[in-house]
Amino acid sequence: MAPRAAAAPVGQAAAGRPAELARLSLNTATTKALTLEQAATAAAGAGLSSIGLWRDRVQEVGAAQAARIVADHGLRVSSLCRGGFLTAADETAARSALDDNRRAIEEAATVGTRELVMVVGGLPAASAPGGPAQPYPGDRAADPGRDVVAARERVAERIGELAPFAAGHGVRLVLEALHPMFAADRAVISTLGQALDLAEPFPAEVVGVVVDTYHVWWDPDLRAQVARAGATGRIAGYQVCDWTLPLAADPLLSRGHVGDGYVDFASITRWVAEAGYTGDVEVEIFHQGVWDTPAEQTLSTMAERYVRHVLPYL
Amino acid sequence: MAPRAAAAPVGQAAAGRPAELARLSLNTATTKALTLEQAATAAAGAGLSSIGLWRDRVQEVGAAQAARIVADHGLRVSSLCRGGFLTAADETAARSALDDNRRAIEEAATVGTRELVMVVGGLPAASAPGGPAQPYPGDRAADPGRDVVAARERVAERIGELAPFAAGHGVRLVLEALHPMFAADRAVISTLGQALDLAEPFPAEVVGVVVDTYHVWWDPDLRAQVARAGATGRIAGYQVCDWTLPLAADPLLSRGHVGDGYVDFASITRWVAEAGYTGDVEVEIFHQGVWDTPAEQTLSTMAERYVRHVLPYL
Repeated sequence: MAPRAAAAPVGQAAAGRPAELARLSLNTATTKALTLEQAATAAAGAGLSSIGLWRDRVQEVGAAQAARIVADHGLRVSSLCRGGFLTAADETAARSALDDNRRAIEEAATVGTRELVMVVGGLPAASAPGGPAQPYPGDRAADPGRDVVAARERVAERIGELAPFAAGHGVRLVLEALHPMFAADRAVISTLGQALDLAEPFPAEVVGVVVDTYHVWWDPDLRAQVARAGATGRIAGYQVCDWTLPLAADPLLSRGHVGDGYVDFASITRWVAEAGYTGDVEVEIFHQGVWDTPAEQTLSTMAERYVRHVLPYL
Repeated sequence: MAPRAAAAPVGQAAAGRPAELARLSLNTATTKALTLEQAATAAAGAGLSSIGLWRDRVQEVGAAQAARIVADHGLRVSSLCRGGFLTAADETAARSALDDNRRAIEEAATVGTRELVMVVGGLPAASAPGGPAQPYPGDRAADPGRDVVAARERVAERIGELAPFAAGHGVRLVLEALHPMFAADRAVISTLGQALDLAEPFPAEVVGVVVDTYHVWWDPDLRAQVARAGATGRIAGYQVCDWTLPLAADPLLSRGHVGDGYVDFASITRWVAEAGYTGDVEVEIFHQGVWDTPAEQTLSTMAERYVRHVLPYL
């Protein structure tokens, strides 16, 4: 395929694409059923200039080919999702996770993004084989599989192990605070402030944070922490989707299009802009209804909502 | 009915009841199907010395009669649940909520507890008639129904309106931080730290906080905030139940018995004890399976889990 447009710098529209969508990015999780080629075609067709990639779609074709597909559509890569899962309590699982994160760092460098989003993992008891935790053994003072403080300390240590490798590849580890309802099974980083605390020992170009409205909208300290993230140069991404109710049976799939729920996009977007963020705005929606919708329609809704509820405050 | 035992002071066992259960309290929400008389009988029969009351069970018989029922079973009242819902954006709803809270304060005084637990309410958009929020109107810069910052300010103001009335009745407004997954529809107080910030302008005997493990276990700042709550004399209650997965279809009913999930009761209980808390420990479980279980069995499980996972750290 011949290149349709050269990839533009971050925050700018590719040639011939609408300026108002210059910073809007499609995260491939939003169009889950599509191959990378299909997702890139849909994003470019909708006038977007960037795309956020999940590793499953990259690995299907290989990172080098993924880079070509993206470039052929005149897109830049806003981020690669995801590294992480660094909380294992046993050494073998921990080594294996670190190895996988090194591969993710290499993939990020190859596909041409410096932002590798990290979902750091939950409690060992929640991710253990056999599923949910069993009642405490009676003869132990405390159960390390439930010790969220210790799990967080392991994340800090392992970020430290990965940081030099990431720096060597020009890749930033982007810590993502997940909503506290995922603290047991997905990510023991639960607030933006905590992500920033973990990032602090490292240079801003090596460890950053992403602001995902779904995960952080409720945080009473959000405005202050967004400002802090901006002041320290650590905002590596802004992801937008909405908190809808009732929660889906699988709460992971409970996200909605911007404007369908309770998030105050005007305020949060303004805070992110005031913090100096000038990068891409990714839409990452996990939702069965969205996945069942034709991609063109999803992209059209995404763009319309973005222009109405996000862009005026950027 | 003749009194079986005189109510003992907070934290102590009624005459003839086991010392190890002296601080364990049954919250009537745990035995949802039972009348107050039945719940009090079950609690006393299991050897407990206290009971936490929900207003529905109090109002069925009237507060004065509720006080007699509790006393006839030699129980003290550990708390009354609940006041709150103070976030309404329109004046009529706000007045009506304040009136209802004044009645709750009077009921607390009548049933003989100084601790009135406050669930402060969610976003007006989430609690509006017609259910979940509709997409934003396109012609407004921001939607007050989604403005969580403003909703929190209204809570602060209305706590201020209620505080003198509560003080006059010897009742403490006990602010409850709810898990952030309830921020839209139930409580815009999402962390213990935020509850303490809201309590700070008032004397500790007028506005306090409750530590509910289900709602706060994930908080990276929990240890520090529990210590702060203790140092300022504001810990008005300690409620224990567990975070289980998968979440129930109605996440409100997703709580489990202590030990069934992911909460580190050893650590949190130790923090609460180190903070100087010497009051009752309520078990408040909303869960269909627990509600479908005979009350005797529920009380027996409650007591066994408490003795194993909580008491050693108190």
